[in-house]
Amino acid sequence: MFEAQLPRAQVLKQTMDAIKDLIKEAVWDVSSQGLSLQSMDSSHVSLVQVTLKTEGFELFRCDKNLALGVNMDTMQKLLKCANNDDNVKLTADDNGDLLTMAFESPNGEVTSEYEMKLMDLDIEQLGIPEQEYSCTIKMPSKEFQGICRDLQNIGENVRLTVVKGGVDFSAQGDIGHAKIHLTESATVDDEMDAITVDIQEPVNLNFALRYLNFFTKATPLSRQVTIQISPDVPMVVGYEIEGLGHVKYFLAPKIENEDDE
Amino acid sequence: MFEAQLPRAQVLKQTMDAIKDLIKEAVWDVSSQGLSLQSMDSSHVSLVQVTLKTEGFELFRCDKNLALGVNMDTMQKLLKCANNDDNVKLTADDNGDLLTMAFESPNGEVTSEYEMKLMDLDIEQLGIPEQEYSCTIKMPSKEFQGICRDLQNIGENVRLTVVKGGVDFSAQGDIGHAKIHLTESATVDDEMDAITVDIQEPVNLNFALRYLNFFTKATPLSRQVTIQISPDVPMVVGYEIEGLGHVKYFLAPKIENEDDE
Amino acid sequence: MFEAQLPRAQVLKQTMDAIKDLIKEAVWDVSSQGLSLQSMDSSHVSLVQVTLKTEGFELFRCDKNLALGVNMDTMQKLLKCANNDDNVKLTADDNGDLLTMAFESPNGEVTSEYEMKLMDLDIEQLGIPEQEYSCTIKMPSKEFQGICRDLQNIGENVRLTVVKGGVDFSAQGDIGHAKIHLTESATVDDEMDAITVDIQEPVNLNFALRYLNFFTKATPLSRQVTIQISPDVPMVVGYEIEGLGHVKYFLAPKIENEDDE
Repeated sequence: MFEAQLPRAQVLKQTMDAIKDLIKEAVWDVSSQGLSLQSMDSSHVSLVQVTLKTEGFELFRCDKNLALGVNMDTMQKLLKCANNDDNVKLTADDNGDLLTMAFESPNGEVTSEYEMKLMDLDIEQLGIPEQEYSCTIKMPSKEFQGICRDLQNIGENVRLTVVKGGVDFSAQGDIGHAKIHLTESATVDDEMDAITVDIQEPVNLNFALRYLNFFTKATPLSRQVTIQISPDVPMVVGYEIEGLGHVKYFLAPKIENEDDE
Repeated sequence: MFEAQLPRAQVLKQTMDAIKDLIKEAVWDVSSQGLSLQSMDSSHVSLVQVTLKTEGFELFRCDKNLALGVNMDTMQKLLKCANNDDNVKLTADDNGDLLTMAFESPNGEVTSEYEMKLMDLDIEQLGIPEQEYSCTIKMPSKEFQGICRDLQNIGENVRLTVVKGGVDFSAQGDIGHAKIHLTESATVDDEMDAITVDIQEPVNLNFALRYLNFFTKATPLSRQVTIQISPDVPMVVGYEIEGLGHVKYFLAPKIENEDDE
Repeated sequence: MFEAQLPRAQVLKQTMDAIKDLIKEAVWDVSSQGLSLQSMDSSHVSLVQVTLKTEGFELFRCDKNLALGVNMDTMQKLLKCANNDDNVKLTADDNGDLLTMAFESPNGEVTSEYEMKLMDLDIEQLGIPEQEYSCTIKMPSKEFQGICRDLQNIGENVRLTVVKGGVDFSAQGDIGHAKIHLTESATVDDEMDAITVDIQEPVNLNFALRYLNFFTKATPLSRQVTIQISPDVPMVVGYEIEGLGHVKYFLAPKIENEDDE
C-alpha cells in the first residue's frame, strides 16, 4: 500500500505543470524516501528529475517500492480538478494498476476521488553523478524566465558568460544581437530576491533556448532558481519546492564549432 | 407599444450570455406579466426557459401581447455594446419589425440606440407541467460549474446519486473514473453558500455533461443554483435572477441500458 | 552620434504598440528637434505621424540628422524585452547601420543591450499642411475605443455628425442600425474625463471603422483623444504623450454617393 498526503494540492499541480510539456509518459518511483521521477524529454535532449521527500508530506506510507507508470497529460488533467487549497491524498495498491487521487475542500463539504489507470512503462534510470560545478548562479526565477523568453525573440541559443560578480546572457539572430547583463546584488532585504554568482572558474557556454523555456514552466514552484554550469557537462536548472523537494532540469551545452558564431 | 426599462444593462447581458450558445433563434413573448422566452436548444435535446417579471423592471408597458422573434447572436452582440451600469430600455411598436435597445450612461453624457430587425419565427410553445421532484439540491453555482467542467475531462456523462445528506457526481472514461461527493452543509453564515439536499426518495440518474456545461454559462446570474431531479422526467437546473425572474434549463436523463456502465 | 534616454521604457513600448499594426517598415527621423516618424499604412489609406520632442527626453544628443529605417515588428519585439520601469537609451552611430537599445532596471542589477540592424528605406515625406478644422472633439480615449469597437459589430463605416453640444456616431448594417450620441460635458472634475465639442460649422462625414480601430491601439498612451474633422480633408485622431510629444493618425472621409445609405 502506498499513501501520501499533502495539505494543499497546489504544489502537485505546479509540479505537473512544470514537467508535462517535456514528458509524455513517466514513472513515479515510490520508496521510503518519497516520490521521485526521472525522465528524458520526448526528444531525448534534456533530462527532468523530480524529488518529493517523505518528510515533506503530511502522511507518507510505502510498504513496498513501486514504479507507477503514468501518462503525464492525464495526471495533470486530473490534478487540475483539485482546487489549490484542497487537501490531496494519493493511494495505490501494491499490486494494483490504479493510482487514486482524492481531494478534500478545506471545509470538508466537497470530496472527490479520481482513479487513473497506470501504465506498464519500461524506463531505464540513468544515474546522475554528483558533480562540482564551475559556476553556481542564483537569481529570482521570474527574472530568469523573462530573460529566456526575451532572448527567444532574437535567436535559438543563449550564450552564458559567467565572470566574477556577474553573468551575461547573449543571443544572436537575423534581426540583431542581444546581451543581458546581471550584476551580483550588493545588499538585499530578502535572499530570494538576490542575484548571487559563485564562481570557481569563468565559463562561456551556449545552450538551446527552446529547452530553457520549457524549464521555466517551473517558475511558480519557487521564487528562486539555481543554475549550475561547467564546461562539457550538462547544466542544471533547479527549483526548490520549499520543505518538500525539488524539480531539476539537465541540459548539455551546444558543441561549439567555428561556424557557430 | 412595448417598453421595458432596467437600471443596469448587466443583467440582460448575462441573461443573453446564459442562453445564446444553446439557442440560435427564439421568440421573446411580451405580455402584461413580463418578458419570457422558451425554446428547445438547436439540437432539440434540452429546453431553456427564461422569465423576466414585470415587477422587476423600472418601467414596463405592454399595450398588446407581442412575439418578438430574434436572432440570439445578434441580440447578444448588440447588448454587449452596453456598459454594465448603463440604463437600458427596450421598445417595440405593436406592428413593427424592429426591437430598439437604448442605453444611457450613468452621467447621461453617452446615449446609444440600437435597432435590431425582428424575425418571423414559428415556434410552438410546449407546456411545462408543474412537477414534484424526488430531490432538490441547492449549491453555490460556481461549485456546480467547476464539477461539470472537471468531469468533462473524464467522460461524456455524469451520474447523479442523491441520498440523504449528500450527492455524488460520478463519471467514467478511458483515462479513469471520478467521483465527487458533496455533503450537506452543517451550518452556514450565508444561505447562498450552503449546500442543501432535499430528498423525497433517493435518485440515481445519468445526464449528458455537454448540456450541463452549456447550462453553467448562467453562473454569473446567480450565486446559487437549484437542481431538481426525479426519475423519468427532465431535470431542472435553475438560476434565480434576484428580483427579476429566472433562467431554467431542462434536460432528460439518459436512458439506461445494460451496456451503459 | 545619436543618443536619447528616457526614464521609463513604457512610453516607447506603448508608442510602438500604437503603430506597428499599421506600418511594416518606417523611418525614424532624428534631428535636434527630436525623434519623429511619418508613414502611410501598408495599404496606403491612412497616415501615421509620431513626434517625440527633444525636451521630453532625459538626455538627447544629435550631432547630425539621421534617418533610421526600421522594421516595426522587430523594433516592437525588442522593446517588449524592456520592463515598463526600465530606463531606456537609444544610440546610433552617424554612419552606422545599427540602432542600439539599452535597458537598465531601476536597481541597476539588470542591464540589457539590443542591437537592431537598420534598413535602407526610401520613403518620401509628405508635408502635412497646417489646417483649421470645422470641428474638434475631445473625449476620454477609452470611450472612443469602445464606440469604434461596438460599431464594428454593426457595419463597416461610422458616420460622424457633429452639431453644437454633441456628436452622433452611427452605423448601418445587415443586422440593424446603431446610433451613439455624446453630449458635451456640463461640468467635470478632471478635464481629461470631459467631452468637449468645438464647432465652427456642423459636419456629417463617413469613415472606415477598420482604420479607426487601428488608431485606437494608441489608447494606453493617453486618457484623452482629440478628433478634428472638416469636409474634404482627412480627419485627425490625436493622442498626446504627456511632456514628450504625440501620435496622430490621418484618415480621409469616405466619398459619398447615392448608393451609400
